[in-house]
Amino acid sequence: MNTLLSTSWERFCQFFFYDPGLDVALDVSRTNLSEEQLQGMQEAWHKATAAMRALEGGAIANPDENRMVGHYWLRAPELAPEPAIRQEIESTVQRILAFARKIHAERHFTDVLSIGIGGSALGPMFVHDALGGPNDMMALHFFDNTDPDGMDRVLARLGERLKSTLILVISKSGGTPETFNGMIEAQNACKKAGLDFAKQAVAVTGAGSKLDQLAEKEGWLERFPMWDWVGGRTSELSAVGLLPAALQGVDIQGMLGGAAAMDRLTRAESSHQNPAGLLALAWYAATGGKGLKDMVILPYKDRLALFSRYLQQLVMESLGKKDDLSGQVVHQGIAVYGNKGSTDQHAYVQQLRDGLNNFFATFLVVEHDRQGDSIEVSPGATTGDYLSGMWQGTREALTEGGRESILITVPDVSARTLGALIALYERAVGFYGLLVNINAYHQPGVEAGKKAAAAVLKLQEEIVAALGPEPLTAEQVADRLKASDRVESVFHVCRHLAANARFGVLADGDGLQARFNRPQ
Amino acid sequence: MNTLLSTSWERFCQFFFYDPGLDVALDVSRTNLSEEQLQGMQEAWHKATAAMRALEGGAIANPDENRMVGHYWLRAPELAPEPAIRQEIESTVQRILAFARKIHAERHFTDVLSIGIGGSALGPMFVHDALGGPNDMMALHFFDNTDPDGMDRVLARLGERLKSTLILVISKSGGTPETFNGMIEAQNACKKAGLDFAKQAVAVTGAGSKLDQLAEKEGWLERFPMWDWVGGRTSELSAVGLLPAALQGVDIQGMLGGAAAMDRLTRAESSHQNPAGLLALAWYAATGGKGLKDMVILPYKDRLALFSRYLQQLVMESLGKKDDLSGQVVHQGIAVYGNKGSTDQHAYVQQLRDGLNNFFATFLVVEHDRQGDSIEVSPGATTGDYLSGMWQGTREALTEGGRESILITVPDVSARTLGALIALYERAVGFYGLLVNINAYHQPGVEAGKKAAAAVLKLQEEIVAALGPEPLTAEQVADRLKASDRVESVFHVCRHLAANARFGVLADGDGLQARFNRPQ
Repeated sequence: MNTLLSTSWERFCQFFFYDPGLDVALDVSRTNLSEEQLQGMQEAWHKATAAMRALEGGAIANPDENRMVGHYWLRAPELAPEPAIRQEIESTVQRILAFARKIHAERHFTDVLSIGIGGSALGPMFVHDALGGPNDMMALHFFDNTDPDGMDRVLARLGERLKSTLILVISKSGGTPETFNGMIEAQNACKKAGLDFAKQAVAVTGAGSKLDQLAEKEGWLERFPMWDWVGGRTSELSAVGLLPAALQGVDIQGMLGGAAAMDRLTRAESSHQNPAGLLALAWYAATGGKGLKDMVILPYKDRLALFSRYLQQLVMESLGKKDDLSGQVVHQGIAVYGNKGSTDQHAYVQQLRDGLNNFFATFLVVEHDRQGDSIEVSPGATTGDYLSGMWQGTREALTEGGRESILITVPDVSARTLGALIALYERAVGFYGLLVNINAYHQPGVEAGKKAAAAVLKLQEEIVAALGPEPLTAEQVADRLKASDRVESVFHVCRHLAANARFGVLADGDGLQARFNRPQ
Repeated sequence: MNTLLSTSWERFCQFFFYDPGLDVALDVSRTNLSEEQLQGMQEAWHKATAAMRALEGGAIANPDENRMVGHYWLRAPELAPEPAIRQEIESTVQRILAFARKIHAERHFTDVLSIGIGGSALGPMFVHDALGGPNDMMALHFFDNTDPDGMDRVLARLGERLKSTLILVISKSGGTPETFNGMIEAQNACKKAGLDFAKQAVAVTGAGSKLDQLAEKEGWLERFPMWDWVGGRTSELSAVGLLPAALQGVDIQGMLGGAAAMDRLTRAESSHQNPAGLLALAWYAATGGKGLKDMVILPYKDRLALFSRYLQQLVMESLGKKDDLSGQVVHQGIAVYGNKGSTDQHAYVQQLRDGLNNFFATFLVVEHDRQGDSIEVSPGATTGDYLSGMWQGTREALTEGGRESILITVPDVSARTLGALIALYERAVGFYGLLVNINAYHQPGVEAGKKAAAAVLKLQEEIVAALGPEPLTAEQVADRLKASDRVESVFHVCRHLAANARFGVLADGDGLQARFNRPQ
């Protein structure tokens, strides 16, 4: 595994991509990608670019769900395959801008509570943290789970301000259980505070969904559309991401513009001139096209700490697939993790330098250090110079140890740059999916998870019905339910019921010997 | 890779560990750990327990640094090998409690700014987030990087309250550059606000360190000790973690008590009765003792979302080593990542279920859902029931797909439980290090990173001296410095200097063609 990386200024120049318009640079010279490999992959690359063109043209690029894949149209509506789609995209952006202007002008709402999970949370949270600051127009908060205590904590933080909180409920299908649960808890909190939920609620969902119908019936403040041709993990530049960002005060047109500019670059036919192509091909070279190495994301900027979590979804949910498009079992994927530098140099970078060579790193560097001037913290050096020295020194050391790395530099953390970064990775994931021949746009495992959870709730119902005053072990309860193959599940459900005194369930004793009953 | 896991109620009962005192359970039945494997590893296990006893007895368990490894004494001072150590531990806890009481009673300070990185940040941040809420005695903030913009953002959040902010500077060596830089920036902010930094500063550092001397000379508010027999990543239960926690209002004696109780359990001689032993042996079985699988941490609780980041350091910095104790090159380690459930089910769990089988999951489950009552969000089910259903359903599905998983259940997120969890993982990492025969207590790669960064800052100095009014390409600058093997570094340093107008450096053009100069 410890092949020494070939590095030189010539190689750097050969694999260095730079766009003056976005001031974004990409360097894949410190991966095992070679000119020979690139040449050998030209056929696959051209097939991928052709498929990408077809996708942008409105092909059914998500065959398992029989759907078009249209997130690129969101920032170039003129490319949409139907005038109706173009019109919907354009009018939605305008409606979001007008809505945010109105909310800001009225000054009634101080805070935003955004209820959503997965693609309806990770992008909005990333952008919120990256661009947030003391000048935000509104403070954003999130319900991104079905953890009751987590919701209580957010509600406690809001406190009295719940009455001036705009509540967004974001769910494409309108039936995501966590989001639905969050909505019910928020409604309950409003009710307890004597507030009219509908008067402060906004829905972002597919037209005609259960959520859309509810919002219409109850007369919510506003409704914005989600479309079936936008996947959750690529929805940051739809209403899902644009609405909370606009409310926060983010320049959403700058974000769309940055994405559109990057999209233009990533349509280049030449793999050497296409930053998303270079990225995807470098991933392929690093992982053998089989995910043999983990993708470690190291943004050297506090504001970008959530980028890795955003990418975990974008990359792993897109690429982590059992079957390829021809139906072969392939178990594809690339594991993604990371936090931020230089912080991580004092944590897991020890392993990256000295331990297992089972990863390739991506250094994400922001050239501009801060607003305003810097003092020197030691002769001739600012904190920003140190940060710069840290990534350079660490990258050097990884290279010396034969560890592959990619470098991306951006000028700043602005709406435009974030749009460009999101677009770069969306396209790179798309290309990589095509190179390994999988559907990068469905998520069958997520559906399966929902079903499995529903089965547990069904079991809970049966257990509650079966429990009476007589104390029973989990084995005995399972016996009564004729479910002796599910004793362990019964055990876990009983423990959870007793820990929360649900339906009056009590536990006598603990561990495997515990006996459960309902005294009343 | 897709061996079907052997699961049954019998196997569950065999590998289920439960302690009624802590109400903590551990289940390793859904890993590939077999009774035969356990038997085969008994000799290694007994060697490990003997070495662990020696470590607790004061042996030089960190030979590379010629140090004792004493974090277990922090919660059982009576076990310390010398009366002086015992006395220092006990008096430090008492001094922390008294200091926090005094600060709380005086009501002068409203906020805490904790400046530290790595082991001086990850534990404190984890505990802060896990136990934080509206009843905190003081609000905590962190500088955990040398990112100037990140510091600006924290200072902006503090705003006027900087004058009532207690500033902790935490560095064992007293010479960590990021922490030192953060201190200088905080001093500068105080100066600009007309505040006397020393009157609100507290040092946590080794006696006699550079930082300790500075704090003494300037008459800081207070100084607390760090000891060379406590490593950064196991320092949460020293002053490093206890001081910020006590100021926040956390029951630090509860945390110490939980850790002490877990420590007693993890001294068991029998591998079947030792939760840390079971954990380490399950890791060994899952990874082949070679880190072949990643450790995915899935706490189903918002408050525990930072646990994976804390564990990234504890596990990866401890185990990610090039050499073993006999000097063989081994490149050990286990990669760790994760965030929280059920949120992650809508992100990367798609890959865990369907994609690459290159990981083992750890489900961390909190039995008690929330303070107060729950409403039902659907007939018979609360948000907490859903959360419980989600982890059970997901674990079931992973098992069906042949993906290994470990389950840990805890009753609540309390100081006592956190102490127990920290102690469990500290010991498991120690055992695993012994099983694979590496020094889990040094971090040579972190030292190397500091040196590499210093070399870049040195290069920056030379570049600044070499630049004049004449515009030069990076190649030309490198030529002047007789550093033609370092053109790429020169290029990156020049770009960073120009992006921040450091020393008046300007760039003409961009990308590889950019030319840099200093007009004045």
